[in-house]
Amino acid sequence: MNVLIVFAHPEPQSLNAALRDVAVAQLRADGHEVQVSDLYAQGWKAVVDRDDFPKLDPRERLTVAAASAGAYFGGTLTADVKAEQDKLLWADAVIFQFPLWWFSMPAILKGWFERVYALGFAYGVGEHSETRWGDRYGEGTMAGKRAMLVVTAGGWPEHYGPRAINGPIDDLLFPINHGTLHYPGFDVLPAHLVYSTTGMDAARFEVEAARLRARMRNLATDAPIAYRKQNFGDYRIPEMQLREGLEAPGDVGFALHIRKD
Amino acid sequence: MNVLIVFAHPEPQSLNAALRDVAVAQLRADGHEVQVSDLYAQGWKAVVDRDDFPKLDPRERLTVAAASAGAYFGGTLTADVKAEQDKLLWADAVIFQFPLWWFSMPAILKGWFERVYALGFAYGVGEHSETRWGDRYGEGTMAGKRAMLVVTAGGWPEHYGPRAINGPIDDLLFPINHGTLHYPGFDVLPAHLVYSTTGMDAARFEVEAARLRARMRNLATDAPIAYRKQNFGDYRIPEMQLREGLEAPGDVGFALHIRKD
Repeated sequence: MNVLIVFAHPEPQSLNAALRDVAVAQLRADGHEVQVSDLYAQGWKAVVDRDDFPKLDPRERLTVAAASAGAYFGGTLTADVKAEQDKLLWADAVIFQFPLWWFSMPAILKGWFERVYALGFAYGVGEHSETRWGDRYGEGTMAGKRAMLVVTAGGWPEHYGPRAINGPIDDLLFPINHGTLHYPGFDVLPAHLVYSTTGMDAARFEVEAARLRARMRNLATDAPIAYRKQNFGDYRIPEMQLREGLEAPGDVGFALHIRKD
Repeated sequence: MNVLIVFAHPEPQSLNAALRDVAVAQLRADGHEVQVSDLYAQGWKAVVDRDDFPKLDPRERLTVAAASAGAYFGGTLTADVKAEQDKLLWADAVIFQFPLWWFSMPAILKGWFERVYALGFAYGVGEHSETRWGDRYGEGTMAGKRAMLVVTAGGWPEHYGPRAINGPIDDLLFPINHGTLHYPGFDVLPAHLVYSTTGMDAARFEVEAARLRARMRNLATDAPIAYRKQNFGDYRIPEMQLREGLEAPGDVGFALHIRKD
């Protein structure tokens, strides 16, 4: 496979960088082609703003969605954004690796999505009507590709469990896994979490490296999270509500959108 | 009260900017002092990196938490970060206003938290031991202050309802409301949502302006979300799990952390 790793950590000597190198080595040993977008090292521009749309009339009000559609379809997106879009189109699988900062991804990676996910490329794709609300949530430009988060956290695994004060990790990551990756069509693999990162010694690093290698070996075969697709009957459109009776007993909120059968 | 509005939208002619002006006018009419941090207009540096810590030895590995603690306690944080910390300390209430991009806040605001929330200022506060895991989740530097999100979304309100494919809005915002605002001690008011923003006409804008004015008038008195506090017996420490039997029937996940009595 072609594998893209989008990496968001500022320090080349960090645990995150060491784990990234473990992943790259394993993927290459298994015969995959690997590209890495190292956002800090690239000096990635984190913020979407008027400079992203050089053809936008300076007198025109900036609406990011409309401007990104104009630049995408007009071929005037900036070179850095086009390069990342090309990597996404090239990839069969995309790994997003980052430290969990304030229960989400770092700003530099959030801005990667805001800039690379142009309207027409990652949203606003396909027919939009009262009966079909676009090719999204399981369909779209990324359909057939896999995505997976690799996330480090300082806290203990217990701190992200079902009854933990931080909230369950899979719920904390739902806006990313479902809302940002499944949305443009990715099949999303369960996130790989590395907890208790502070002061990790060499013995624990070897354990974590082995766990990550195992996930990389199974990148092409692990079952994705069984998110429901939007346009195959489970949802009322245009209200976008899950039809009554489809859920497992007791499921509410985010859990409604994962098939249990 | 002293009210800080942290505003994250790139366009001065936007709906968001118009709503911000409505909020500022109402708050001032009600006798409050108001400051606005307009992140795009300020050219806010979105990304936390080595430049944030000018006293860090260039040969030293960058660990953001440790570096921010060193700079905070050593008084060497950059002037832009110090200025935002001073505004937080000045404020009795803080409003964060932004468009919902990929089900979270814009990168420029995420980076505001990453840079302004230094270790020692917004986390790592108070005694950390096996029986008391710091002053957080209801205690900390922001204790006694109020916070509130004002969020615009292109989608319909139905699209963020209990059974909606995007997920319930309050769950999508939990990593911000609970994990980023309640964490350093804020009392968090229910978020104010403005939906269906695309192509809003003047009549609908007046309706939305009136709704926002009402929220501003009640900023000092609205009841906050009843998040459980960490250190008052509801949680086992250090595992940070909610004790059995405290929840309302059927509550799971994020809902466990809101008192229903």
